[in-house]
Amino acid sequence: MTVTDPVQNLATLIRCPSVTPAEGGALAALEAMLAPLGFAVTRVVMSEPGTPDVENLYARIGTEGPHLMFAGHTDVVPAGDEEAWTHGPFSAEIAGGEMYGRGAVDMKGGIACFVAAVARHIESHGAPGGSISFLITGDEEGPSINGTEKLLQWAAERGERWDACLVGEPTNPERLGDMIKIGRRGSVSGAITVHGVQGHAAYPHLADSPVRGVIALAAALMDPPFDAGTADFQPSNLEVTTIDVGNRAVNVIPSKATASFNIRFNDTWTAETVQDEIVRRLDEAAADQRLRPGRAPVRYELKWAERPSHVFLTRDDRLIASLSTAIETAIGRVPKLSTTGGTSDARYIKDYCPVVEFGLVGQTMHMVDERVAVADLETLTKIYQTFISRWFGDAGA
Amino acid sequence: MTVTDPVQNLATLIRCPSVTPAEGGALAALEAMLAPLGFAVTRVVMSEPGTPDVENLYARIGTEGPHLMFAGHTDVVPAGDEEAWTHGPFSAEIAGGEMYGRGAVDMKGGIACFVAAVARHIESHGAPGGSISFLITGDEEGPSINGTEKLLQWAAERGERWDACLVGEPTNPERLGDMIKIGRRGSVSGAITVHGVQGHAAYPHLADSPVRGVIALAAALMDPPFDAGTADFQPSNLEVTTIDVGNRAVNVIPSKATASFNIRFNDTWTAETVQDEIVRRLDEAAADQRLRPGRAPVRYELKWAERPSHVFLTRDDRLIASLSTAIETAIGRVPKLSTTGGTSDARYIKDYCPVVEFGLVGQTMHMVDERVAVADLETLTKIYQTFISRWFGDAGA
Repeated sequence: MTVTDPVQNLATLIRCPSVTPAEGGALAALEAMLAPLGFAVTRVVMSEPGTPDVENLYARIGTEGPHLMFAGHTDVVPAGDEEAWTHGPFSAEIAGGEMYGRGAVDMKGGIACFVAAVARHIESHGAPGGSISFLITGDEEGPSINGTEKLLQWAAERGERWDACLVGEPTNPERLGDMIKIGRRGSVSGAITVHGVQGHAAYPHLADSPVRGVIALAAALMDPPFDAGTADFQPSNLEVTTIDVGNRAVNVIPSKATASFNIRFNDTWTAETVQDEIVRRLDEAAADQRLRPGRAPVRYELKWAERPSHVFLTRDDRLIASLSTAIETAIGRVPKLSTTGGTSDARYIKDYCPVVEFGLVGQTMHMVDERVAVADLETLTKIYQTFISRWFGDAGA
Repeated sequence: MTVTDPVQNLATLIRCPSVTPAEGGALAALEAMLAPLGFAVTRVVMSEPGTPDVENLYARIGTEGPHLMFAGHTDVVPAGDEEAWTHGPFSAEIAGGEMYGRGAVDMKGGIACFVAAVARHIESHGAPGGSISFLITGDEEGPSINGTEKLLQWAAERGERWDACLVGEPTNPERLGDMIKIGRRGSVSGAITVHGVQGHAAYPHLADSPVRGVIALAAALMDPPFDAGTADFQPSNLEVTTIDVGNRAVNVIPSKATASFNIRFNDTWTAETVQDEIVRRLDEAAADQRLRPGRAPVRYELKWAERPSHVFLTRDDRLIASLSTAIETAIGRVPKLSTTGGTSDARYIKDYCPVVEFGLVGQTMHMVDERVAVADLETLTKIYQTFISRWFGDAGA
């Protein structure tokens, strides 16, 4: 089997129904592509009580540095309403110049192209002047508990060290080459419970409305803005994503109200300082006498929802320039260096080596009829191949 | 059976488990008390599709004016946790000078006392110099659909006209004689649904948070205050009683948020003008550009929850003075003339004749161990008896 054709590679991967946490044959197929190229492939099952076991893959070719990692995931989100798909979500059918299938752009497509790029590089240059590894998880679209973070720890404990990483997530909003992600905002989530005193709506002075309390706290969380943005990042933004009381009696002031929030914060903050600011805003609003003349501060509890995602910005010239130049060479356009969007597994990788993200066009990700232009697969493979050559300094070889 | 003893009357009524909508024997017992006194008693079943039938009672003695109505209800709220009661909720047991039972103060006690007062009045004066009627519903604690409002219509259609009404609800906050209710604020309820645009919390500019919208609308409804109160009424007050979104995904901006509200309004407003003001506040907040720079107004729907309760104030000197003097005579205290508290069936009666409310001490109403001081039953009977004499001008007879 030749793996220099990204279209064939992707068809093989799409036909594996690897909806998180199922391996679905996708990692086995990847192993079958990499082993013949000379990669040492290890498949690693990660476990955690209360969560399903998830299979992951680590493969390396070469034993010396410099060491380039390609990271990504073979798991995909569910197909949704399969009847609504023009072509089956695991069919990899091509129609109108596009290949249909769940994972086509997010991100079996990126993996298919990088495999083809590595194969072509080896074909033309022989083994790379250093090492290339694939760090591929099956738990990126799910809870991400048995995925990239653990796989990195596992590999590091075995002595693996990397000099740079490319994550193959679909980073381009509209056209291939639009955007490289060189950092990500951090993310912190939390939930507040406001305790009031239940009572009759006709006797508000005998009650203490937690609805008034939660409105005051939620408003203080969202406004004013946390900052105006920085040179590399858009402004931090907090959204209160839900408020819930569940009171069905319109003549009753309820006893409790809850709200959840999520902030995406830039490099003005660390996760710790942004949490401090959130507590400060809550305490200030809770004690605001203009809102509750003569009353004690709003009683609330705050629970941080999960471990925060830390903000990061990659400043590795070799990595960014190799990739940027490869894109410009292939399609004549200079990509935007961006830090927009949600979190990704790059937030774990940045603790081990500089990391950037570049892949296909994300428009159809997670949607019915997820699909990729077949031409884009060839172009991305060329970009990846040029990137590999430039990063290893094999360009002239 | 002698019915001049309010304690016996109340014990009989409490032992009838007349939890709405059950008649429970309570109206039959009342008929058995009134008929021997000379009352013409009619029991009337009211019906409405989709609601349980409810039995009501109308009884009149006399054929001429002036005509005094006593209004109330024999239905009671559920006992709640019966195990938690010190004495059975339908036992009418007396302990420590108090009679225990559901309805003891709200408001079988008031009925028991008025029956005893009328019996004593007839015993000492003969038939009253006019007419006395009992308008007693079995649907006050429930949806109030098959109760006082329909019973009034039914009686009016049969030619009944009244000159004044006393409602026997428990009006005293702490001690018998504290308070006569001479009016009530109005009440209007509504619900708003705010429509946003769902999206990822990391891309708020692509979404439109209905949580932000509902917070803005809810805050505008509650503040600033609608008025500062009037000579006869406390300030109008609006409470947002619930906000609900139901979004479990902390990284998702939801598409919809709902809120419900209730306003208790004074005679600054009518139900119509207060509704207009609510719409004005909602529209103003929805379009507030400070909250949504460059965005279209918040899209919301408003549903009025039910027919409004209209505000009223009774200014009938004969009615108020007769009752007030009776209280002062019995216990040496001048009652406060108040318009505080929730709505009551007086809101229907006020369309037919002047109406005031006076009964027992409300502290234990709707609670476990609802109970009444036995001494209060005798005192209230004396107050009611003096009131009847004074209102009919029989005081010297």
